[in-house]
Amino acid sequence: MLKISHRGEMMPASPIRKLVPFAEAAKKKGINVFHLNIGQPDIETPKSCLDAVRNADFNVLEYSHSAGNESYRKKLVQYYAKNNIHVDASEIIVTTGGSEAILFGFMACLDAGDEVIIPEPFYANYNGFAVQAGVKVVPISSKIETGFDLPKMEEIEKAITSKTKAIVICNPNNPTGYLYSEAEMKILEAIVIKHNLFLFADEAYREFCYEAKHTSAMHLNGAENNVILMDTISKRYSACGGRIGAFVTKNKEVLNAAMKFAQARLSPPYYAQLLGEAAVDLPDDYFDITKAEYKLRRDTIVERLNKIPGVFCPNPGGAFYAMARLPIDDCDVFCQWLLESFSYNNATIMLAPATGFYATAGLGKNEVRLAYVLNVESIHQAIDCLEKALEVYPGRVS
Amino acid sequence: MLKISHRGEMMPASPIRKLVPFAEAAKKKGINVFHLNIGQPDIETPKSCLDAVRNADFNVLEYSHSAGNESYRKKLVQYYAKNNIHVDASEIIVTTGGSEAILFGFMACLDAGDEVIIPEPFYANYNGFAVQAGVKVVPISSKIETGFDLPKMEEIEKAITSKTKAIVICNPNNPTGYLYSEAEMKILEAIVIKHNLFLFADEAYREFCYEAKHTSAMHLNGAENNVILMDTISKRYSACGGRIGAFVTKNKEVLNAAMKFAQARLSPPYYAQLLGEAAVDLPDDYFDITKAEYKLRRDTIVERLNKIPGVFCPNPGGAFYAMARLPIDDCDVFCQWLLESFSYNNATIMLAPATGFYATAGLGKNEVRLAYVLNVESIHQAIDCLEKALEVYPGRVS
Repeated sequence: MLKISHRGEMMPASPIRKLVPFAEAAKKKGINVFHLNIGQPDIETPKSCLDAVRNADFNVLEYSHSAGNESYRKKLVQYYAKNNIHVDASEIIVTTGGSEAILFGFMACLDAGDEVIIPEPFYANYNGFAVQAGVKVVPISSKIETGFDLPKMEEIEKAITSKTKAIVICNPNNPTGYLYSEAEMKILEAIVIKHNLFLFADEAYREFCYEAKHTSAMHLNGAENNVILMDTISKRYSACGGRIGAFVTKNKEVLNAAMKFAQARLSPPYYAQLLGEAAVDLPDDYFDITKAEYKLRRDTIVERLNKIPGVFCPNPGGAFYAMARLPIDDCDVFCQWLLESFSYNNATIMLAPATGFYATAGLGKNEVRLAYVLNVESIHQAIDCLEKALEVYPGRVS
Repeated sequence: MLKISHRGEMMPASPIRKLVPFAEAAKKKGINVFHLNIGQPDIETPKSCLDAVRNADFNVLEYSHSAGNESYRKKLVQYYAKNNIHVDASEIIVTTGGSEAILFGFMACLDAGDEVIIPEPFYANYNGFAVQAGVKVVPISSKIETGFDLPKMEEIEKAITSKTKAIVICNPNNPTGYLYSEAEMKILEAIVIKHNLFLFADEAYREFCYEAKHTSAMHLNGAENNVILMDTISKRYSACGGRIGAFVTKNKEVLNAAMKFAQARLSPPYYAQLLGEAAVDLPDDYFDITKAEYKLRRDTIVERLNKIPGVFCPNPGGAFYAMARLPIDDCDVFCQWLLESFSYNNATIMLAPATGFYATAGLGKNEVRLAYVLNVESIHQAIDCLEKALEVYPGRVS
């Protein structure tokens, strides 16, 4: 019998996208769906960035260098320097989105059977890359009650076995919005040095920190050899479709290995490298403006959520996600019910069930993730829907 | 000790790109290097395709669907129909280059330890994807003496073990330019059906067949469930930098598995999908003109090569590559020597040593691959260089 691979069977389907057919059915019925389920910002891609592609002047769309165009990597050096991250262009591999940076990291550093520790809830696609690399994800639980802060050092160390090769963090975090403090980053530094682990740092949302300063894993000068930065322009400049990211490390051995994976796929996409290059020259207030908008949305959504009886939403320090605990029996059932059986003012809300972000079965059943990627007015309307829905949802618990 | 993965160590470096530093050094000395080493066509990307990107009108560069924009997949249905390949838009996943289509195929169908049979010499990056998937490549040798035709059925069957899960072909072939005949495709069909194997068909060069007609693996109606087409717009429209390919299969189980890998990386690049969509509307004579140009180059390079004493070059039926046997001791040494120690009329030639395309150690030592991606005048000048070089190369053998 012709059979797909075990890996293909094990590969998790996207926990977010499984609700899409229900949203499509709702729209066919004429219901307006507020999409707070996915990290697709509505913020416009900067015009100068789009123009860089529109004005591209060449006659042959050639492969770029496997590590990305040199001119773009040199620009990225400037970008990182502004963030107090000092790297050389040779320490950067331009990747096809942050996704490929994660895949390269897993492939270059981890073997089948190795273990990687990730604070849960975590970005669900880490599971997918782990399956591709044959790696086992070992979750350590962060909790909504404490705002999803980093588990204590001894709890992290308890999870370390002889097979542990790396810790993955996303900072600020998707899905929780939690911003790791400098002290927490120092704890991670101490652990990875003590136990000889890699620290994979996904910093896709670096610019979106609303109160405290961002501490990059690249600022941990004692762990230079351990740290691999996995980056992307997707959220930073609302350029998700460009598929441009970066793999950055001071570890030459890792860099050389990752470069071989980069060569095998020939090159990253050309066009969006032009966009990314232009983005580095955006005026300094670009992020101030964008951040102010996201902060306003965060303040709005968190305040509204916490006013709903039975709802608890810790205030996220960064990114554009909030996790909320709801008075419900089952978030998967609830999110589907919202699309299938509910509307208010001819509208409903699409949320991401939190179960998809936890590796430990049973956790997150009464939590959802809300991406505040809509304007404040839409957020108010969306939360109006959620509020009404919670009043009538048959699976409401007290 | 912090160590990279075994997989990272095993990963082969690009056999073509390792010569790049020597080419750069030659250029610094003011020597003109004729690049016949890499499949980067000089043919212009069609203006209407570049314009489709230049005229793109949107304000947010959003993720596309994980399977690619629906409008593009519908266009691809038309494109394939013109090639007598009848698929539905739902049977196509738009990928990041042909590279990702290969990776998805390996990941979705093969497990670590599985074996995949590939006629050698073969596209070197198959090795890289095999390492990523933990798969063992089992080569079956095709020979320059017979123009690299498909090994006999019994030889292929001899290579099949209980671990064999698939056969990979590239048709027309990179690096040999060989075009598999309909009879050979029928042999492959019989084998994959008899032994329950997948047939991965890389048809990147489908349009470039100079005498005989192309038989697609998708034309093998009895093997619909076995065949996975791995495609790309890179060579077809000289759009290598766009990084747009396609994974196409009638096998629903494989399609569903591949879709999960596609979801994990979110989406293919947006911009070049616009380019690919416009390409389907190119006038019908587009390929006639391009093919005529490549045929002229092929005729030129093959004729010139076979006139050089001691050189043998079978006439390739497709793609834009020719393999030549040279009167040399070691193609790796020779190709480096060409860049380091030789010039004629202040020029030299960069070739791909054939050893990188063979999995069996020791094979291909006196062969090189020539990509005829330069115009006829440059090809003449390049072969002038090669002719002179062979006269003085210290490692010449008779």
